Amino acid sequence: MSLDAVLDPASVAVIGASDDPDKVGGRPLVHLARNGFAGRILPVNPTRTQVQGHVCFPDIASLPEVPEVALVIVPGESAVRAVEELAAAGTQVAVVIASGFSEVGPEGLLRERHMKAAAAAAGMRIIGPNSMGVCNFATGTVLTFTTAFIEVPPVDGPVAIVSQSGSMAVEPYMLLASEGIGIRQVHATGNDSDVSVGEMAVLAASDPSVELLLLYLESVKDVDSLAELGRVALERDLPVIALKAGRTPAGEAAAASHTGALAGEDRVVDAFLERHGIWRARDLGDLVRATALHLRPKRPKGNSVVIISNSGASCVQSADAAELWGLGVAPLAAETRAALDSVLPGFATSTNPVDLTAALIGNSRLFADVLPPLAADPAVHAIHLALPIAGQGYDVEAFAVDLAVVAEDIPVVVSCPMPERITAPFTAKGLPLFRTEVDAIAALGSYAGAWQRRLDARARGPMAVLVPRIGPTRMLDEAASMAFVATAGLPVVEHRLCRDVGEAVAAFHELGGARVVLKGCTAAASHKSELGIVRLELGSESEVADAYDQVMDALQKVDPAAPGVIVATMVRGRRELLLGARQDSVFGPVVVVGDGGTYVEAMPDVQLLLPPFTADEVRAALDALRIAPLLHGLRGESPMDLDSVARAAVRVGDLVADPDTGVVSVELNPLLVGDDGQGCRALDAVVHVADGDGPTSGGAA
Amino acid sequence: MSLDAVLDPASVAVIGASDDPDKVGGRPLVHLARNGFAGRILPVNPTRTQVQGHVCFPDIASLPEVPEVALVIVPGESAVRAVEELAAAGTQVAVVIASGFSEVGPEGLLRERHMKAAAAAAGMRIIGPNSMGVCNFATGTVLTFTTAFIEVPPVDGPVAIVSQSGSMAVEPYMLLASEGIGIRQVHATGNDSDVSVGEMAVLAASDPSVELLLLYLESVKDVDSLAELGRVALERDLPVIALKAGRTPAGEAAAASHTGALAGEDRVVDAFLERHGIWRARDLGDLVRATALHLRPKRPKGNSVVIISNSGASCVQSADAAELWGLGVAPLAAETRAALDSVLPGFATSTNPVDLTAALIGNSRLFADVLPPLAADPAVHAIHLALPIAGQGYDVEAFAVDLAVVAEDIPVVVSCPMPERITAPFTAKGLPLFRTEVDAIAALGSYAGAWQRRLDARARGPMAVLVPRIGPTRMLDEAASMAFVATAGLPVVEHRLCRDVGEAVAAFHELGGARVVLKGCTAAASHKSELGIVRLELGSESEVADAYDQVMDALQKVDPAAPGVIVATMVRGRRELLLGARQDSVFGPVVVVGDGGTYVEAMPDVQLLLPPFTADEVRAALDALRIAPLLHGLRGESPMDLDSVARAAVRVGDLVADPDTGVVSVELNPLLVGDDGQGCRALDAVVHVADGDGPTSGGAA
Repeated sequence: MSLDAVLDPASVAVIGASDDPDKVGGRPLVHLARNGFAGRILPVNPTRTQVQGHVCFPDIASLPEVPEVALVIVPGESAVRAVEELAAAGTQVAVVIASGFSEVGPEGLLRERHMKAAAAAAGMRIIGPNSMGVCNFATGTVLTFTTAFIEVPPVDGPVAIVSQSGSMAVEPYMLLASEGIGIRQVHATGNDSDVSVGEMAVLAASDPSVELLLLYLESVKDVDSLAELGRVALERDLPVIALKAGRTPAGEAAAASHTGALAGEDRVVDAFLERHGIWRARDLGDLVRATALHLRPKRPKGNSVVIISNSGASCVQSADAAELWGLGVAPLAAETRAALDSVLPGFATSTNPVDLTAALIGNSRLFADVLPPLAADPAVHAIHLALPIAGQGYDVEAFAVDLAVVAEDIPVVVSCPMPERITAPFTAKGLPLFRTEVDAIAALGSYAGAWQRRLDARARGPMAVLVPRIGPTRMLDEAASMAFVATAGLPVVEHRLCRDVGEAVAAFHELGGARVVLKGCTAAASHKSELGIVRLELGSESEVADAYDQVMDALQKVDPAAPGVIVATMVRGRRELLLGARQDSVFGPVVVVGDGGTYVEAMPDVQLLLPPFTADEVRAALDALRIAPLLHGLRGESPMDLDSVARAAVRVGDLVADPDTGVVSVELNPLLVGDDGQGCRALDAVVHVADGDGPTSGGAA
Repeated sequence: MSLDAVLDPASVAVIGASDDPDKVGGRPLVHLARNGFAGRILPVNPTRTQVQGHVCFPDIASLPEVPEVALVIVPGESAVRAVEELAAAGTQVAVVIASGFSEVGPEGLLRERHMKAAAAAAGMRIIGPNSMGVCNFATGTVLTFTTAFIEVPPVDGPVAIVSQSGSMAVEPYMLLASEGIGIRQVHATGNDSDVSVGEMAVLAASDPSVELLLLYLESVKDVDSLAELGRVALERDLPVIALKAGRTPAGEAAAASHTGALAGEDRVVDAFLERHGIWRARDLGDLVRATALHLRPKRPKGNSVVIISNSGASCVQSADAAELWGLGVAPLAAETRAALDSVLPGFATSTNPVDLTAALIGNSRLFADVLPPLAADPAVHAIHLALPIAGQGYDVEAFAVDLAVVAEDIPVVVSCPMPERITAPFTAKGLPLFRTEVDAIAALGSYAGAWQRRLDARARGPMAVLVPRIGPTRMLDEAASMAFVATAGLPVVEHRLCRDVGEAVAAFHELGGARVVLKGCTAAASHKSELGIVRLELGSESEVADAYDQVMDALQKVDPAAPGVIVATMVRGRRELLLGARQDSVFGPVVVVGDGGTYVEAMPDVQLLLPPFTADEVRAALDALRIAPLLHGLRGESPMDLDSVARAAVRVGDLVADPDTGVVSVELNPLLVGDDGQGCRALDAVVHVADGDGPTSGGAA
């Protein structure tokens, strides 16, 4: 049995077919007819013998053949029975449009599980339930009830849209189709009970005629398929642009109320998509805006744009937008500037943005003159022509002809707010046209960004998906945690676990008799400084002894079973960092690296990494921190030992990625980093292990 | 002479009139005729006796009357001569379209100054040169050469657009006019040689039929007029929305190259516009997007939106957008939820966003049922109907009728990507319609934000504009700076300026014999720690004496004329803040408050305040810092003494606002703040005074 059948079946049964073309049960027959479906159509409805000109069968058992694919429209229990019969008969894929399943509550969820089990037993795949349907306009396989394709009829083309939500399959379709962009596949997977949105996307991505894949993710469940999607897409350089709403707390709350699913933390979604070469759109507009650019056969060479305008104000707005959308404003080569100087009006500057000034009116040659040297400049990777004014006096036709030649090699966007009558030459030449400067630049930014992301992901190679380690865990106390991470090869401050005052004083001497720190050792508290169980800068036997007594007193109140106190060398360093790893409920282990100390929760400055990763990737993550300048040394300071931090982060990644270690989460905070060459050391550690693994309390490191 | 004349003159001379309606000199006559200008039209052209049906005069001297307003089209020196003659004759306003002045370089600048002086001597006002023109469609006074109003003819209405740039006058016009929104005034002031964009905006704002003013600022020069604009607009609750490009370094560089003008720092522009009740648009789309909302006669009651949709995905996207655009997602009252529960399908949740689910198809009553209780909920200040799918099966007509009733009281926006044919009922009812959820929410966000800003600015009352103190300044050394600010009533750490080692040791004892700091005192260096002229934690006579010798050695290399070293009490506190004030080249004195210490430049966390301001405004600025949670006390810590910081900031504001103090800039860094009640103290100070003011080096504080 193969899911592939759903895109081009030899036969389709429509369970619950209606003769009324305006009904949910009637509309799929309209779509199949209109879109030229060449397979056999087998309507099922016990009350009719004919449906929209097709012979109609009373039930599945009466069908003259086993339908390869079935569209299940009948509701609730009838849908479950239909799926059972279809599975038993040997149908390959059932597209279940019927709703009233897991989306309506526990009773529906049971029904959905039952249906899924019946299909799975026979090897039949289910898309849905609560799916808007599956549509492949190339084969006329349009298995959906939506009116969208009647309101705006499809034009076959290179775009595929795959969504969990039906409305979010239709909405990008509407925005693209109304601009005349051809769309080949539109799928909405609904409740994802069997076939997930990711698996459907892999199917769409495997169609070589699909050149752009737009994805709407509601809640990520099937991480493996998304990773597979990344792999398949990278292999043939297919741009995959994903929109996942719920980036803000308000959006996340709305998503939780709507889908009821665990969402995975939004920043982890970012890290995951980035790692797999999938570009994340900021919003629906961003999802579709760069479509014409993504469909260019040529890829860009970089992310620097040259802006050409007849208005200084447009130049400034475009430059602002370029920075906000991640594009560079290309510095021009000396020869390019010389070429511009020879044609521009005396007062115009030959810098980028190139302001042709109002001199362009009545002298449309000006554009033809500046374009070739600009396009030839190796620093120019894209061109934005911003025409806030055009019309009478401007040879827009000539602009379009000249630009179209250049656009063969370099991505080009045009912005112009004038009526279609005036801008038509650009559209006629297939040049992406926008009404405002910022929209044109935003499209270029998403295009170049998605391309760069594919390059980076391809360079890093495919990545195995790790399974979240969910289940009972146990927190090791500080001594055990430190011993654990030290054994695992992570740098830890020298320390001793002491069970009486004599051991504490002895430890003070063993550690060199210099200043030490004394901390209550317990797994019952994570914020120790508030509890009075930490003493710093102890420099003598008596200070150590006094501190031991005070800390043990305070510790007894917090955790009567605490094993003792830790005496550790008081070390100096440059900055307290945080290095940790935890389990995302969906994406599995995530390593966190960033600024450390007491206030990390209130003022987070962290970057996420999905293991496995290299030291270079950690260095890049450190460079993305707010405190990056400080880490590299400011105002005459030497750089800090970031290589040691990178090595430690890789080790933490290995620890949580390897299920044999039993490690579920690690937090090293502070991880004190010193000058370059002096390494870093964890001054504190908290380790959670899967319950049953590891010691409770460790000894000396 | 009055600028007012330019909006409705009794007579207009056109200097350089052409008979060819397609020429720059001919088009204004076309505009005047088409727009029904009722005054007398007086073309001037030595080569013709008739121009487009009007009697034409050979020169200004031959005119049968003194034109109230003249449009100067002839170029360069001819324009200067025309202005001279018009000024001498008694014309009130010359609109100079001619270019070739300050925008082309020094020679042009001289010509422009000459022209301006001639006009000023006679009291004539000049708009331009290099102006696209002045247009008042209400009176048909359309004094411009642009083809924009021929390509898309104007419809008179309540919007005014005032811009320096001609293209940025046309671009919002195009975007609005193509949506059928009526526009009354469009002005572009060009080089602002006399009448500034701000003054022109004040004139437009004074027209009671103008209900929304859109402003494009290229470089802010005339701060007073902008402040006056704020005052006039607040007085009658006129929304003023400003777009100023150059927010990013790339945009700023482009702006500098284009305008050549000092820009004023972008964050100061923000602070200034906020203080004066002017809302700043993010980009051109944002400038125009909320227009229909701003034109509602009723004002909003708050910034909380209820989102209603037939799609969960639209709910999530809208909620995300709401957070990003500063809107709240209103929590619904218990009665509202009960009312929703009684009509929604069983599985739908009665929370905001309100997901009507696909149940809306075929049951359009659902919307009519939920709308009244939602509109009646006092927490609901705005309504967003998001319809990603509509058409067959949806009673869009009924939705529009119901919404239009509610829209009388509450701002309403609709998003729907379907073709116009389907969405027409919304437009017919005047409901603001957008293609995507995020655009609809963005419009609401800008509308509510602009309204809230007017409320806040009105509550704070009008503010005097302060003049930047530009000119030679002198930096006081640290001792003099500290003495200066201490005298001015600011809290400063106890310290002594010592000229030999004996004084240093004596100071150590005078300061209590506890730990002290020793710093080289010089006006020649601002980053002292790198230079080895700072010693901390000195606790004995010998430590102080040794440090004195070492610091003096290092100091001699930096500044042989340094007056000595400062010995100061080593004080403890909670956080090092920064409190400073400097002169913005355009907006005058600006107070900066934020996180302090050594790394403020590399990792700035500051807020700006324009003096005069209150302690409450400082508290609000502190609350907007990244470190705000820390200032309020985290993890069991007590709050810091922010009232003392607020008082100090107000004092610093007074110091720089009062020209008699001679203070040009102040920097207190670190300003060490302690626990609540323990105040704050400057540990270091750098003061610049206008040259000639103040002492060079101060004594003890």
